[in-house]
Amino acid sequence: MSDLSRPRGTRDFLPSEMSRRRIVEGRMRDVLSRRGYGEVQTPTFEHADLFIARSGPQVLEQIYDFRDKGDRHMALRPELTAPVMRFYASDLRNQPKPLRVFYFGNCFRYERPQKGRYREFWQMGSEYIGKRTAVANAEVIDAAIEAITAAGVGSFKVRIGHVSLLGSLLKDHGVDPSKDKDIMIAIDKKDRVRLAQMVPARDDIDIAPLLDLITGLYEYDDALGRIRQLRMVKPEVTDACDELETVLTALYREDLEILFDPSISRGLDYYDGVVFEIEVPSLGAEKQVCGGGAYSLSSVLGSEVEGIGFGIGFDRIMMALEGEVRPPRKVRSFYVIPIGERAVRSALAAQRSIASFGFDCILEAQGRNLRKAISFAVSCGMTHLVIVGEDEIEKGVLTIKDLGDSGQVTVGVDGLSEYLRSIHPED
Amino acid sequence: MSDLSRPRGTRDFLPSEMSRRRIVEGRMRDVLSRRGYGEVQTPTFEHADLFIARSGPQVLEQIYDFRDKGDRHMALRPELTAPVMRFYASDLRNQPKPLRVFYFGNCFRYERPQKGRYREFWQMGSEYIGKRTAVANAEVIDAAIEAITAAGVGSFKVRIGHVSLLGSLLKDHGVDPSKDKDIMIAIDKKDRVRLAQMVPARDDIDIAPLLDLITGLYEYDDALGRIRQLRMVKPEVTDACDELETVLTALYREDLEILFDPSISRGLDYYDGVVFEIEVPSLGAEKQVCGGGAYSLSSVLGSEVEGIGFGIGFDRIMMALEGEVRPPRKVRSFYVIPIGERAVRSALAAQRSIASFGFDCILEAQGRNLRKAISFAVSCGMTHLVIVGEDEIEKGVLTIKDLGDSGQVTVGVDGLSEYLRSIHPED
Repeated sequence: MSDLSRPRGTRDFLPSEMSRRRIVEGRMRDVLSRRGYGEVQTPTFEHADLFIARSGPQVLEQIYDFRDKGDRHMALRPELTAPVMRFYASDLRNQPKPLRVFYFGNCFRYERPQKGRYREFWQMGSEYIGKRTAVANAEVIDAAIEAITAAGVGSFKVRIGHVSLLGSLLKDHGVDPSKDKDIMIAIDKKDRVRLAQMVPARDDIDIAPLLDLITGLYEYDDALGRIRQLRMVKPEVTDACDELETVLTALYREDLEILFDPSISRGLDYYDGVVFEIEVPSLGAEKQVCGGGAYSLSSVLGSEVEGIGFGIGFDRIMMALEGEVRPPRKVRSFYVIPIGERAVRSALAAQRSIASFGFDCILEAQGRNLRKAISFAVSCGMTHLVIVGEDEIEKGVLTIKDLGDSGQVTVGVDGLSEYLRSIHPED
Repeated sequence: MSDLSRPRGTRDFLPSEMSRRRIVEGRMRDVLSRRGYGEVQTPTFEHADLFIARSGPQVLEQIYDFRDKGDRHMALRPELTAPVMRFYASDLRNQPKPLRVFYFGNCFRYERPQKGRYREFWQMGSEYIGKRTAVANAEVIDAAIEAITAAGVGSFKVRIGHVSLLGSLLKDHGVDPSKDKDIMIAIDKKDRVRLAQMVPARDDIDIAPLLDLITGLYEYDDALGRIRQLRMVKPEVTDACDELETVLTALYREDLEILFDPSISRGLDYYDGVVFEIEVPSLGAEKQVCGGGAYSLSSVLGSEVEGIGFGIGFDRIMMALEGEVRPPRKVRSFYVIPIGERAVRSALAAQRSIASFGFDCILEAQGRNLRKAISFAVSCGMTHLVIVGEDEIEKGVLTIKDLGDSGQVTVGVDGLSEYLRSIHPED
């Protein structure tokens, strides 16, 4: 039996949902474009090797991979950074630095569908490719914050950490972040009890200060104190501390929750500098809406690339906005009613004119009589009728009726533009 | 060896190309939205059955199909109509009629890559679901014409035909369009010589009038003559003739090339009324940029649906525009230069303010000195500098330099909004 249902874990979007999504997408897009980020786009599928090179062979367990008709091993992209890096290496590496790019696209993951997790989902992200100065780190995090703010998310937390600082602290205790995965999970959860059990005991160093530090979350003044302390006891992390201090100071604002979180360990094999995560507490388990940081790559591309990037989960942003996005209200919209087939030509011409002035303008095309057409126009929320009947054709005019005040004007077909100019702009 | 190249037959898009594509997409989107079409979006992949149901099992030869990890037979969508119809059947069927929807998305076809044909390509299209009146046919074709005009395509031809009229004429000569594929190809090519050989000879009917008709292409007056003639000799095609006459008359304009083409036979198993194609002659072999028509479906959806749809090949539209799209010129754009790390905080705040007024505003973040930063700003085409140095921080001001006339103003940090308001709007 043929399966004609929507694939499990995917979504169809209604016009009302798409219009909200396009509005929010546009707002975020504007933030990045104005700041000098240019949009790039890569194919929906890539050679599976690309994602294996970035994330290791276990990535195959949760992606859509397949053999194409030429027996190539392909995969639907599970993320957009690797494709953008591939594009960078092949076509963009000679552009002047810094190179600022952003992207907005769908990604795919084969995982158990659940609330807020889909098999096809949308990501927006950016890459700043060039020297990773503290200023650049601050700029990138600020761009992410501004994009999320512009989207309309009211309440969120920005947590900022530093992976090489964390790595250095763990090394003192004999922990290798790339091998001790369970420890990294406990750190991510700030699970002090488990960490105390898991981190190997050493006679010469007390573990309490480390646990104190990484299980904490620090507001600005407190953060600066902690960072100063670290710099004192561990001079080899001075650079990381300086960077953190500059970034936190540059971003600190009274009306924003920006916290120093030393536990952030996202992709330690990829990131190696300042890292950050943005969360919307009201989203519960799916609260993280953005993550990113500074990286330097060499393996994938054959030559060194350094940069700072972030990704924003667009679907989660949309969830965080639930019910708060409204398309701009149209002050005037027109419903054109041709009466009889002879009227269609003039009706279409009127529709073209009216739409060219930026107004919404819908044509009655179901053969309804005038009364029914009017009540349909009203139910669609249209504000004006444009009637083209025998009488109008005879006289070369259009009748325009205001559904609000029932006012009515007759304009010559040639006078329509003038009429439209007189009521425009509509806002 | 790992293959990290771009997949064959696909493209990466540079910022300059994406910006052109987004502008053109926006123009076409505006045309459809204003006319009452609402955007819908469906998943990138579907059960392969959906495309088999629409196009038959041979569709598998040229699509990307694969088994997912749950052993389901999936396919990357080769077209968007079938998914939209699936969505209609499951979620939209109870909406008031007519239902006008449009979509813009990528499709996939596994075929030999060649100029103008890609394995991932973009389609824009619409469906008018409801009674297929002649007015509705005219409205839909007019929407396609307006979308292509708005995109900026200067010169194109619209050919309009009627598949049930064509089918009826062929039947008289014993040709079954669904079986005689070679004949249909010869008709599509208007190949009179081959047709004369292929169409079975009959003693009682001369084949010449049929060949004359379908190998011709008729301008308005000529078209009406031909249609009148058909109505006379073959009363059973009166309805089709009336429909054609109304549509051609409604659309006829002096400045547009609209032709009656009786040979259009696109998807005779799908369409069953007025059909149309739009071509851009300058594109050569890939000249067709749009096709569509009236259909009624029952098989796929379990219940009857009638409507009128079209699809526009977005990549071909972009090719037809080559070099003619320019983003709106920015009259003012700002390059913010923080001097020293203490200045970053004020520089970011200035960037946020300036961008919030809709201006482009880029931050210097590579640690360049003032001289180099200025020359970089100039090379990026920025028109204004915003300098935040020790002096400025001390005094709580920003220095704004006009790179055009070298004029310079100093504004208090608190006065920035007022300054921006005074120079806005920028158009």
